[in-house]
Amino acid sequence: MSNETNRKPDVSRRKFMGLAGLASAGAFGTALTPWAAKAMDMKAAGLTGQKLNADEMDAMHQAGVAAFPAETEGLGGQPLEYEMDGDVKVFHLTCDIIPDWEFEPGKTTEAWGYNGAVPGPEIRVTEGDKIRVHVKNNLEESTAIHWHGLILPNSQDGVSFITQDPIKPGAEFTYEFPIREGNAGSHMYHSHHNSAKQVTMGLLGAFIIEPKDPASRPAFDSEHTIILNDGPIGGYTINGKSFPATSPIVAKKGERVMIRYMNEGLMIHPMHLHGMPQLVIAQDGWLLPQPYYCDTLNIAPGQRFEVLIDATEVGPWAFHCHILSHAESEHGMFGMVTVFIVEE
Amino acid sequence: MSNETNRKPDVSRRKFMGLAGLASAGAFGTALTPWAAKAMDMKAAGLTGQKLNADEMDAMHQAGVAAFPAETEGLGGQPLEYEMDGDVKVFHLTCDIIPDWEFEPGKTTEAWGYNGAVPGPEIRVTEGDKIRVHVKNNLEESTAIHWHGLILPNSQDGVSFITQDPIKPGAEFTYEFPIREGNAGSHMYHSHHNSAKQVTMGLLGAFIIEPKDPASRPAFDSEHTIILNDGPIGGYTINGKSFPATSPIVAKKGERVMIRYMNEGLMIHPMHLHGMPQLVIAQDGWLLPQPYYCDTLNIAPGQRFEVLIDATEVGPWAFHCHILSHAESEHGMFGMVTVFIVEE
Amino acid sequence: MSNETNRKPDVSRRKFMGLAGLASAGAFGTALTPWAAKAMDMKAAGLTGQKLNADEMDAMHQAGVAAFPAETEGLGGQPLEYEMDGDVKVFHLTCDIIPDWEFEPGKTTEAWGYNGAVPGPEIRVTEGDKIRVHVKNNLEESTAIHWHGLILPNSQDGVSFITQDPIKPGAEFTYEFPIREGNAGSHMYHSHHNSAKQVTMGLLGAFIIEPKDPASRPAFDSEHTIILNDGPIGGYTINGKSFPATSPIVAKKGERVMIRYMNEGLMIHPMHLHGMPQLVIAQDGWLLPQPYYCDTLNIAPGQRFEVLIDATEVGPWAFHCHILSHAESEHGMFGMVTVFIVEE
Repeated sequence: MSNETNRKPDVSRRKFMGLAGLASAGAFGTALTPWAAKAMDMKAAGLTGQKLNADEMDAMHQAGVAAFPAETEGLGGQPLEYEMDGDVKVFHLTCDIIPDWEFEPGKTTEAWGYNGAVPGPEIRVTEGDKIRVHVKNNLEESTAIHWHGLILPNSQDGVSFITQDPIKPGAEFTYEFPIREGNAGSHMYHSHHNSAKQVTMGLLGAFIIEPKDPASRPAFDSEHTIILNDGPIGGYTINGKSFPATSPIVAKKGERVMIRYMNEGLMIHPMHLHGMPQLVIAQDGWLLPQPYYCDTLNIAPGQRFEVLIDATEVGPWAFHCHILSHAESEHGMFGMVTVFIVEE
Repeated sequence: MSNETNRKPDVSRRKFMGLAGLASAGAFGTALTPWAAKAMDMKAAGLTGQKLNADEMDAMHQAGVAAFPAETEGLGGQPLEYEMDGDVKVFHLTCDIIPDWEFEPGKTTEAWGYNGAVPGPEIRVTEGDKIRVHVKNNLEESTAIHWHGLILPNSQDGVSFITQDPIKPGAEFTYEFPIREGNAGSHMYHSHHNSAKQVTMGLLGAFIIEPKDPASRPAFDSEHTIILNDGPIGGYTINGKSFPATSPIVAKKGERVMIRYMNEGLMIHPMHLHGMPQLVIAQDGWLLPQPYYCDTLNIAPGQRFEVLIDATEVGPWAFHCHILSHAESEHGMFGMVTVFIVEE
Repeated sequence: MSNETNRKPDVSRRKFMGLAGLASAGAFGTALTPWAAKAMDMKAAGLTGQKLNADEMDAMHQAGVAAFPAETEGLGGQPLEYEMDGDVKVFHLTCDIIPDWEFEPGKTTEAWGYNGAVPGPEIRVTEGDKIRVHVKNNLEESTAIHWHGLILPNSQDGVSFITQDPIKPGAEFTYEFPIREGNAGSHMYHSHHNSAKQVTMGLLGAFIIEPKDPASRPAFDSEHTIILNDGPIGGYTINGKSFPATSPIVAKKGERVMIRYMNEGLMIHPMHLHGMPQLVIAQDGWLLPQPYYCDTLNIAPGQRFEVLIDATEVGPWAFHCHILSHAESEHGMFGMVTVFIVEE
């Protein structure tokens, strides 16, 4: 593992273009019934209030799965580029109103996000870096950015009226701090002003600190960030999208996959992976003295966990919040659902 | 400890016939007031809307405790018999509508369950076994069974439209897979189709994998499975029943008791045992590298925990969810409450 | 560390009189705008239903912070004095109706509490002690006291109709039991009769058992108890108060601070400290075999955790429940928020 490996475009972010080889027809091996297309139209039209019979219900379930991974406008969590100013990495963030964030195919809502996306771009730095973040507030209310999990000077902590004046609409603010050694791991940045609204509206992102010495943390072949939210935008979302618009996680058999969980919502979300256990190695960025296995990891608001998954079992495995009402209705799977696909 | 020991009828499932020896009058040492009988009638009649005075309230509390453990129709979680076909253990499950599941004395509701009960029968196998499960769907909607926690071929994972077509009403389906070595512990089976409804309606059960080598897991004298649910059937239930219809756990002083917790509901349930600590030894079937003690174990949906309790303290100990609104109202204890009884 | 140190008045309970040195104007370094005073008046008058512009919203946020730590009537959690009767420590508790508990400046509600306060007084004893607690019930309904986390004779466990008759209005009851060796740590006492109401109304308190051998548990320089509640009195509270009426935690740079978390509410509360990690050393009083670091600790109802915080970072650090709707609205911070202040 090297930092180069970590910085390459994340496989979770490329659109997965189908599951040929796993299935002979349809996305997951079942022929799409005539009802499925009709069901998709009905869902789009919102005409699903009536009592469904089993075939109608199944068709809607099938239509959802067949649509996965569905193309939608907008993709958050992309790497945030920086420029160097001497030995300082300089980043730029804007706090934006997004009038029509498409969280599910054909369904849009007003969201607020950094650099026009939900989640905001992924900031990735290394222990020992010096960083500067220029923030421009394009919202209609004030804001401030808290670097959740980072150990930094109090003045840079981003809590309005406790560590700084809020950033007024139209105003700019610059944060600047060193990245401490010992602070590696999965962290977050998000609003800390009117936060119950601003964060759930989408003003959130991943802040990942690479270890200076890669050998100081467990190795893996690929990594994926799963940011959970349950706010007003799109309901129950993974990285700003609701199933079937979530991105699959794809691994080759034998690979070791790292998942970085982050909960930015207001509820717990116990994330259940089918087929293979999760080895929990870090909590809030801190390596656990004794990693432990589970298949359902309970993640509370504000928490982050890093888990390793050995992709030993071939096939498409459901991966979802096990509060089942966050993942499935009688109209099929939605919300906090994705698929972990292990290819031969 | 041997597999034979584990397979003997679970003491939690026999009806506990009173607490003579612990009490001189009434179930728990207090004389039943005239009000208590009246209170039980009032509860049954639903005539409890008025503001109660202290004596009336106490009488209702007492009536509930005096009725424990209350007889009700139907008892889930019984061992599922199998037949051998060569070296394959063959099980049969039906997915049934239960028109009048009695979750509390005199209170019934429609439930859905395997083999006509909630929880469904307990499936218990051993690492290295080969199993086959014939499923017949007697529901009015499709279904599929997910073997939650098991490592198995993708085609047998039971997620409709991802790993199989759903099982239509009236149809049958057969699952067949080997029980992997290393997969011992407390697992579950439940619907993975319209699951937010089907699971909370009762389509759930325990799936326990014994270790091939009993010495590979901690020994105990008796064991009990506590399946938590908070669905439409009976509200907050333990093994499909609400207090006072829950089953007590009875141990002799000096015994080591194992509890297998499983949460099949939509909410967390922090289970608090009075009087003795719980040693948490496994999570989701996986032995913890470092067992730890607690008295209140927070169990999220989809999670399982195995704990050991040394029955050192004699007496009847309250054992309940510590979200107190899941366990007691002004009319007395209800829902996720049972009693852990240590006998001399 | 000695018992004397532990028994000295807790720094968290003295009123912190401002942050001079950290700020040149206002509590936290920002000049109080004219709007802030007006905002405080508006909040008091409840005239905040209209849509606020950014400046109005900010003023309300600022007013809340500027008021911290706000003086209110009543302070719970004070050490409970005892007298010796031979070798028995004798305590007295009354169960009281408090007509106007001031949980936020100018906001009062009826609460129920021990010895007239919420939380009730802190009981602090040592392993090996013998104790007696005289209880007088001044409520209009019956009650009983459960010693949550203590290992004691069944008859003293305080569960009405299971281990005792409830204590009627106007009646008295005496508990008497030894404090077991091995039972050190952070425990609680609270009602176990109509508990969903009585506990959330405030009938709760800390019960701390010092180790007989101080070397048997980690050392620290100061300690603070954080009792979380989410009941009818004051909404989301820390030690019976809502921000800005919560007490700050103040430490000198270099000190090691111990926090004893206790959740007496009906919801989880993941407590997030800014600026410094929390080392989790004990759960429900039991020392963890492997302490672990985190910055957001999820605390479920009935659970207690002990954490150590090395006060290495100077400044005022936000410290709050990360279910953000328990901590901030568009009118500013409220509820489960305090400030952890590290002084040079």
